[in-house]
Amino acid sequence: MRSGMKELDCIFKPKSIAVIGASDTVGKWGYMMVKRPLKTGYPGVIYPINPHKSQILGLPTYPSVIDVPGDIDLAVITTPAPTVPNIIQECARKGIRGAVVITAGFTEAGEEGRRLEEEMVTAAREGGIRFVGPNGMGIWSEVGRLSLCFDDAPKKGPMAFVSQSGTFGGAMARVASQKGYGLSKFISIGNQADLKAADYLEYLAGDDETKVIILYLEGLRDGRRFFEIAREVVREKPIVVYKAGRSKAGARATMSHTASIAGSERVFDGMCRQVGIIQVTEAFHLFEVAEALAILPLPPGNRVAILGSGGQGVVGSDSCSAFGLELPELDPDTSRAISVLLPPHAPQAKNPVDFAGTKRTALQEVEIIEKLLQLDYIDGVISNVPVSARTWDPSMEVDVNDKLSSGALKVDIDGAMRYASLPQIYGKPIICIRFGRVKADIMEQILGEGHIPIYDTPEQCARAMAALAQYGASCRKTNEWK
Amino acid sequence: MRSGMKELDCIFKPKSIAVIGASDTVGKWGYMMVKRPLKTGYPGVIYPINPHKSQILGLPTYPSVIDVPGDIDLAVITTPAPTVPNIIQECARKGIRGAVVITAGFTEAGEEGRRLEEEMVTAAREGGIRFVGPNGMGIWSEVGRLSLCFDDAPKKGPMAFVSQSGTFGGAMARVASQKGYGLSKFISIGNQADLKAADYLEYLAGDDETKVIILYLEGLRDGRRFFEIAREVVREKPIVVYKAGRSKAGARATMSHTASIAGSERVFDGMCRQVGIIQVTEAFHLFEVAEALAILPLPPGNRVAILGSGGQGVVGSDSCSAFGLELPELDPDTSRAISVLLPPHAPQAKNPVDFAGTKRTALQEVEIIEKLLQLDYIDGVISNVPVSARTWDPSMEVDVNDKLSSGALKVDIDGAMRYASLPQIYGKPIICIRFGRVKADIMEQILGEGHIPIYDTPEQCARAMAALAQYGASCRKTNEWK
Repeated sequence: MRSGMKELDCIFKPKSIAVIGASDTVGKWGYMMVKRPLKTGYPGVIYPINPHKSQILGLPTYPSVIDVPGDIDLAVITTPAPTVPNIIQECARKGIRGAVVITAGFTEAGEEGRRLEEEMVTAAREGGIRFVGPNGMGIWSEVGRLSLCFDDAPKKGPMAFVSQSGTFGGAMARVASQKGYGLSKFISIGNQADLKAADYLEYLAGDDETKVIILYLEGLRDGRRFFEIAREVVREKPIVVYKAGRSKAGARATMSHTASIAGSERVFDGMCRQVGIIQVTEAFHLFEVAEALAILPLPPGNRVAILGSGGQGVVGSDSCSAFGLELPELDPDTSRAISVLLPPHAPQAKNPVDFAGTKRTALQEVEIIEKLLQLDYIDGVISNVPVSARTWDPSMEVDVNDKLSSGALKVDIDGAMRYASLPQIYGKPIICIRFGRVKADIMEQILGEGHIPIYDTPEQCARAMAALAQYGASCRKTNEWK
Repeated sequence: MRSGMKELDCIFKPKSIAVIGASDTVGKWGYMMVKRPLKTGYPGVIYPINPHKSQILGLPTYPSVIDVPGDIDLAVITTPAPTVPNIIQECARKGIRGAVVITAGFTEAGEEGRRLEEEMVTAAREGGIRFVGPNGMGIWSEVGRLSLCFDDAPKKGPMAFVSQSGTFGGAMARVASQKGYGLSKFISIGNQADLKAADYLEYLAGDDETKVIILYLEGLRDGRRFFEIAREVVREKPIVVYKAGRSKAGARATMSHTASIAGSERVFDGMCRQVGIIQVTEAFHLFEVAEALAILPLPPGNRVAILGSGGQGVVGSDSCSAFGLELPELDPDTSRAISVLLPPHAPQAKNPVDFAGTKRTALQEVEIIEKLLQLDYIDGVISNVPVSARTWDPSMEVDVNDKLSSGALKVDIDGAMRYASLPQIYGKPIICIRFGRVKADIMEQILGEGHIPIYDTPEQCARAMAALAQYGASCRKTNEWK
């Protein structure tokens, strides 16, 4: 399946790009399309195209792509809509195979735009060009070090984000990056005149840098093909979707935005369930849920144990239940074995296991978590980031730097490393709550970097665990059918 | 009503406190109860009580409260449960009127604990002492500069947070403070043996520093009185509640946590609706929603206009609809008048008003927002933090410091000041989305400080607006009855 989409490598890993409509006026699209790849360290050749300039941002500039001496993999088009069909033809003559069309004013702008969009598609088909857009905000490819959409490179990571909204999608991606979620690709798909959501799914399924595909969608073009391809892709990697335009008011807004006609939400939701796409109900949950899917083993079932003090356990239990997870009661032997490890004033160990307000180091938590992961009726654990021995018991009053050379740091590192390795050892997920820590410390650094997802609230933890359980169940179903 | 609760001033504004069970062992409760008020700048006198020490943390220490030379307003008790009833009697003999009982091991720990709790309550009643706890994590009072629960003073602000979970509530309060939400009080209410949620409501209703009361509850003791008092209090200030222990698993967890029996959720929800308490479905939403309630005028109705690009408008519309807000279509005259103010490639102005991806300065947004606020069919606006002229158009490429002395800064400040004043001028709320800004800048500083709540996502904005609309409606209902 995927071999057919290797052709998109010319878009996401181009050795050379031409920016058609390049400009030296700060703030213009034709300026940003040259500036951004330069700033984010694009290693290939950039050819600005502008008949009135000999140089833009220090780069030799050519009147047209035909005049460029070398090969061009990707054309970035920012010139007005009426010029685009001819430019596509010219690109084809030059042997260019991929394009990103930033220009707006096509189907979303009315009848004349719709006609131009058709002309552009015809020119591309005839010339053997695949293109992103039009009316998009560009792309980011980590592996290609190519940014057409961000002024600064976002954090590197395992999520490919396919967004039908450029501005909002880009804003979400920037917030996500700030919060520590990493991206492999960002694609602002615009009007999807040629390449559609389904095509990106197909390409990303074969993309080694991408572990999870997340989508912001307003409406589908060719929904049938989208779900057919999604059904294949979810066998290889999870797909998480936020579907906007669900309400009457929201659907009205999508019309003028990306020329999408929001379809029946019931049908869309049903198809997602059927093919195994995970849906989220708030847009930013895309990143939160994808983080867990990218790094954790899938739980064998939906039965969760919670480790945490008082209210954290209560809210965790409530939200796990709300998301369809089960919290089995502990058997008497396990309850006794864990109770011994709790502080004397804590109640007898149940699920959730209540620390009764005491802070716990990594090794103290590990001992209990291992007992829980060994149970055949527990499929995953929600816990919290342990405290660092370095800033606790009794060094709370001591400058942390004093302790760096003492044993405390080694205890912390050993404990956190063990903690971080548990999901792989037991083949079950662990998710942690940050739990009001004043700032990230060594614990969070060791656990957080690719081992255990860390969130601010019990609800985020439960949502992520539920997504894992859902994807686990859909993978098991697929395997049964094989 | 409130005059009766002025007696709690001895707890929240004490001139002197005695810490019974004071200790110089780092990490012990008896240590933290002396250390924390010292560290957060408590201006009154602290008397550590410990028969085996002459000095703790540099303070003269007394064998018992009876031996203290001066008056004591508040006793903080950390000694083991069996000692507490006698200590309360001793405090009464000393003339102490308030206590915070940190000690655990009462009703939540079984039959013997239940008996001790009864004894303690009897001693307090007979001796004229009101107390917080037991089995709580203490209090924070900004006006009293008294921290028994936080190592560092949280951000100052208009929210009083009453929490039935000490550890989790404290963790939430710390996260909230980091995110910029400010607290006037934090009360970890513990087992509520004497003072109950209802009493704190009554006290906080008359507390000048508190504009909104937020509660984390697991179960009520004397629910009837709680709702009777809440009904009175919501006429003066909003109450927002998160109710935990809703699920079977969650209710099980509350039992061993704070000895609460979670009641019927349906009855609880119904009573909240009836008396006008706002409920949130995730614990941290307490702070988000309270921020808007604390600083904004109430909307005259539930009809909202949204200003923002593409997907932000779509997701904003969806979430407003989901929370019961309406998005009226714009009348033709207004649509024409606003369209003139949009960039040429933007679609005709509808609701949401779509900027089509262009960034807007404060003055550009103000012009549109004023037109919307003037409409009698629009009750509030959701917008986004405008861009700073200083880092945009065309200074994007310029070191921002170069511009500090130029006109750009003045334009920014004037625009933001006007923007920030609109809610009071029109008597309608404005809520902003941060919208993926790389970092807080002058815009966010001016808007954010007590004028316009700023959130990360459209869903947060819609939730806050819905809470305002709900409280507005309940206030109008109350006034009709008067």
